[in-house]
Amino acid sequence: VTNKTPTVVLIGTGKVAFHLSTAFKQAGIKIVQVFGRQSDKAEALSKISGATFVTEIHKLQDDADLYLVAVLDQAVAEIAGLMPRTRGIVAHTSGFVDAEVFKPYFDNYGVCYPLQTFTADRQLDYRDIPFLIEGSSMKTELALSSLASKISSSVTLANSDLRSKMHLAAVFACNFPNYMHIIAHEIVHETGLPFELLHPLMLETASKAVSMVPEAAQTGPAARHDMSTIEAHLNLIKRMGLKHEEVYALITEKIIEKYNKPNKQ
Amino acid sequence: VTNKTPTVVLIGTGKVAFHLSTAFKQAGIKIVQVFGRQSDKAEALSKISGATFVTEIHKLQDDADLYLVAVLDQAVAEIAGLMPRTRGIVAHTSGFVDAEVFKPYFDNYGVCYPLQTFTADRQLDYRDIPFLIEGSSMKTELALSSLASKISSSVTLANSDLRSKMHLAAVFACNFPNYMHIIAHEIVHETGLPFELLHPLMLETASKAVSMVPEAAQTGPAARHDMSTIEAHLNLIKRMGLKHEEVYALITEKIIEKYNKPNKQ
Repeated sequence: VTNKTPTVVLIGTGKVAFHLSTAFKQAGIKIVQVFGRQSDKAEALSKISGATFVTEIHKLQDDADLYLVAVLDQAVAEIAGLMPRTRGIVAHTSGFVDAEVFKPYFDNYGVCYPLQTFTADRQLDYRDIPFLIEGSSMKTELALSSLASKISSSVTLANSDLRSKMHLAAVFACNFPNYMHIIAHEIVHETGLPFELLHPLMLETASKAVSMVPEAAQTGPAARHDMSTIEAHLNLIKRMGLKHEEVYALITEKIIEKYNKPNKQ
Repeated sequence: VTNKTPTVVLIGTGKVAFHLSTAFKQAGIKIVQVFGRQSDKAEALSKISGATFVTEIHKLQDDADLYLVAVLDQAVAEIAGLMPRTRGIVAHTSGFVDAEVFKPYFDNYGVCYPLQTFTADRQLDYRDIPFLIEGSSMKTELALSSLASKISSSVTLANSDLRSKMHLAAVFACNFPNYMHIIAHEIVHETGLPFELLHPLMLETASKAVSMVPEAAQTGPAARHDMSTIEAHLNLIKRMGLKHEEVYALITEKIIEKYNKPNKQ
């Protein structure tokens, strides 16, 4: 990778690959080739950047500066073994796959992990997406950081151990809150009232946790150890025939433990 | 309550009372008197509106149009019993206390429940706060709705049964996601990386659940039934000496059940 804009090959046609190719296009970075097993998806993605596409992995060109492997975690190792050998940098985009997965096959490798939740057809401001970068050498790390900096204003070096912890944290910051929203949605649906009534609360909850810290933002019956409301909520869940008692009980217990230790014997 | 601006007495000096008095002031609604047991708090709150304040409940005036009881759930019944009898409307602001708590003491009563999480010293756009209204008569309901409409653009009638369900939903929409954020914060703290790296993810998670629906927004290892990542996360939690295995395991199990039923025997 020199000072000129690097040439990039994109491997994968999922949500991350789609958003990265859009982000690259916006940043003026040239994707030269796209690989995907399904030709319709590979073709669609290649059109975003005016790249060529291949559906057989051995047909990938071997002279690009960077190969971004944006596939499911469990497919990264297989892809690495099937790709042509190259002197370019090979990097995956996973939060949880070790960078060393590439070691048997490549001299220059690393990770370029966008710490965000991606959905097809949803616009994102790519400048806001934090990228966690790891490289097999300082030179590789610099090249990957430089590339990520063209897309995002938040680029951080993090080895595979740190990255896996951030990935775990992301499950608690995103996937689990969303499941709580699903339960809230189900309960509101039972009332016949519009789910929109909860929207300001959901947005304010995230906004508070960001502008204060979540420890200071905790409210509700469990935080104030209000056992009569907690009992009434559990009875209501049963009465409504919902299957969320266990989740309510466990999280409530944990919040009580955290905020009310002095009250316990 | 006539067409002229109603006179309001505010009972309570907590976060909800504080925010309501600020909202009333912005809306040009006159609070004439504030009650609070602690004179410093009652005085501070009375100053926002230029109201008088009392620290003994029997000293409350009996001729206001509306008495707003913004106290802890468990204190509403006691306050109701101690207040002077009045022909005005007496309404509490709780999500979970039945409106009938006022029936033994007053002719005109109801509920004015702001569906939001309140924190001292945090600015809120009161127009966005949904109010759930209930009244002992249509006239009372109209008066309370009319008052709430002066503050907020979202006013909905809901009886105590519906309101208690919305209150339960709010726990899942706010308190439980916030606890997930607390765990995420704890994990990030262990890495030494800044918590700010998770901010865009937390905000996007709420934003997605609002603009799509949360069922369509679910991502992560559990939603894709990725057992090897789930096992690795559980091991990582143990290895880090954190006490969140049970929460991780239960929510993951529930998400798998929801999204992967066809895979199960």
